[in-house]
Amino acid sequence: MARLLEGAPVAEALAEIMKEKAASLRETGIVPTLAVVRIGSDPAAESYGAGLAKRAAGLGLRVESRVFSAGTTQETLEKAIRSLNRSGRIHGILLMRPVPAGIDELKLCRLIDPDKDVDGAGLVSLGGVFTGEKETGFPPSTAQAALEVLRYYGIGLSGKRVLVIGRSLVVGRPAAMLLLREDATVTVAHSRSEDLPALTREAGIVITAVGKPEFLTGDYFGEGQILVDVGVSWSPEKGKLCGDLCFEEAEKKAAALTPVPGGVGTVTSAVLLSHVVEAALRAEAKRTNGQNA
Amino acid sequence: MARLLEGAPVAEALAEIMKEKAASLRETGIVPTLAVVRIGSDPAAESYGAGLAKRAAGLGLRVESRVFSAGTTQETLEKAIRSLNRSGRIHGILLMRPVPAGIDELKLCRLIDPDKDVDGAGLVSLGGVFTGEKETGFPPSTAQAALEVLRYYGIGLSGKRVLVIGRSLVVGRPAAMLLLREDATVTVAHSRSEDLPALTREAGIVITAVGKPEFLTGDYFGEGQILVDVGVSWSPEKGKLCGDLCFEEAEKKAAALTPVPGGVGTVTSAVLLSHVVEAALRAEAKRTNGQNA
Repeated sequence: MARLLEGAPVAEALAEIMKEKAASLRETGIVPTLAVVRIGSDPAAESYGAGLAKRAAGLGLRVESRVFSAGTTQETLEKAIRSLNRSGRIHGILLMRPVPAGIDELKLCRLIDPDKDVDGAGLVSLGGVFTGEKETGFPPSTAQAALEVLRYYGIGLSGKRVLVIGRSLVVGRPAAMLLLREDATVTVAHSRSEDLPALTREAGIVITAVGKPEFLTGDYFGEGQILVDVGVSWSPEKGKLCGDLCFEEAEKKAAALTPVPGGVGTVTSAVLLSHVVEAALRAEAKRTNGQNA
Repeated sequence: MARLLEGAPVAEALAEIMKEKAASLRETGIVPTLAVVRIGSDPAAESYGAGLAKRAAGLGLRVESRVFSAGTTQETLEKAIRSLNRSGRIHGILLMRPVPAGIDELKLCRLIDPDKDVDGAGLVSLGGVFTGEKETGFPPSTAQAALEVLRYYGIGLSGKRVLVIGRSLVVGRPAAMLLLREDATVTVAHSRSEDLPALTREAGIVITAVGKPEFLTGDYFGEGQILVDVGVSWSPEKGKLCGDLCFEEAEKKAAALTPVPGGVGTVTSAVLLSHVVEAALRAEAKRTNGQNA
């Protein structure tokens, strides 16, 4: 029977650390605060935002929404981000993506102050992920969440072969860089990769971020693998949200695997909020250093 | 008999393109100019600088050396880089690394104007390599040189398994990112990787950047491989500069391989100079746009 790597205890462990840090910040009158910028109406984004606010409240953090209509101009959005950058009360900025057509998403991401870029959207954060500098922005939360699951369940990475399927800037590429920091031997595969089933079967640990429901079927799996499923997509066939893994087939051979829902996704918002706390701590350290200088 | 992937024709092809671009720049009175910042005396760095200047002269480019004694302060060096950043005559800045102990190399790299960072040393360049944006700084020349060799000799990368041995920011990690752009399936291995000989044997194409003379011996090689050797190090045993490959053993099985010397190293300085030309073109485009705005 494959071991189920559930996200809830991982998120809970991250929450415990956050609570402590948030409490110490509260003593200096600071409530770590995340601004969520949402453009247009998207039920999935709304529900994510609501879940985030609820989790934040339980930890002594704050989430503020900035909602713009789908027809908002680029200029208005840039102004909003600049204003959030300047605000001493806001420690983190999350731009919900994708943004509506006609809006320059990349430009908005780049505009976010690197010190507040808690979801690793800008060039400084991504540069930091690439170079391995830990205090340079923040890694994308989803990529880090996949790593946090492995860490929590004590799955050793040093020297091991890990396959990452997907090369996006939100998961695949940053996950590969975070895995290298942990001394894994990392392979990045993608839609153009030849013989993906064989590649997948060979890897001891697989992190998949394809975003196609039940894309990985029986012939992708080898005996005793660890499978981390970052994909979440709607399966019209099953009429529900599914991961990349065909779960029934995967669990027959795997040593351990994450469920969808209840796996990596559950950890992502905890990681994001931990970045907000970290951003508040860095801002406070900067302020204190400034006073002493 | 394995095919020898010599660097000279690759460098020559790059030179032809450069000459044309440099000629068109000369018509507007611009000579693409690289400043080489060298600290302390190091025969290898001096000889590299001299070779660079000679090659540049043949292409209608200019190389200027800024040589500092080993005892120079951090402050003096920072001032020098700032001054080069401001100079309208200088299009590219190369800081020879490693720098002497006591000098903050990272800080100097970060100080270089991203538009002049022709060897991909700073965070913006490296962020651009990671995100795949082509006009954001420049990739490290050595990493790109390895790719140029494969491109020149018509070795297809799309979908293929490529192993990169080494995870430095100068070669391994940026080479992996450049390979992903070409749709390769990329594995990054390193000193902590388990069973490196087996990993290496399995890969169709190997780019090695270990920096230990003849590190890869017989049991690392598979039949029909393409081997690109980025390593250059002194072998006390052989009393000469060697690559990572034990060449005699490698050529028995490989389909094609690069020699050392005369392989990737020969291409690196051509790539670097092509970045200087590109930087001059970008500066000129910026100036023209500025006038029209």
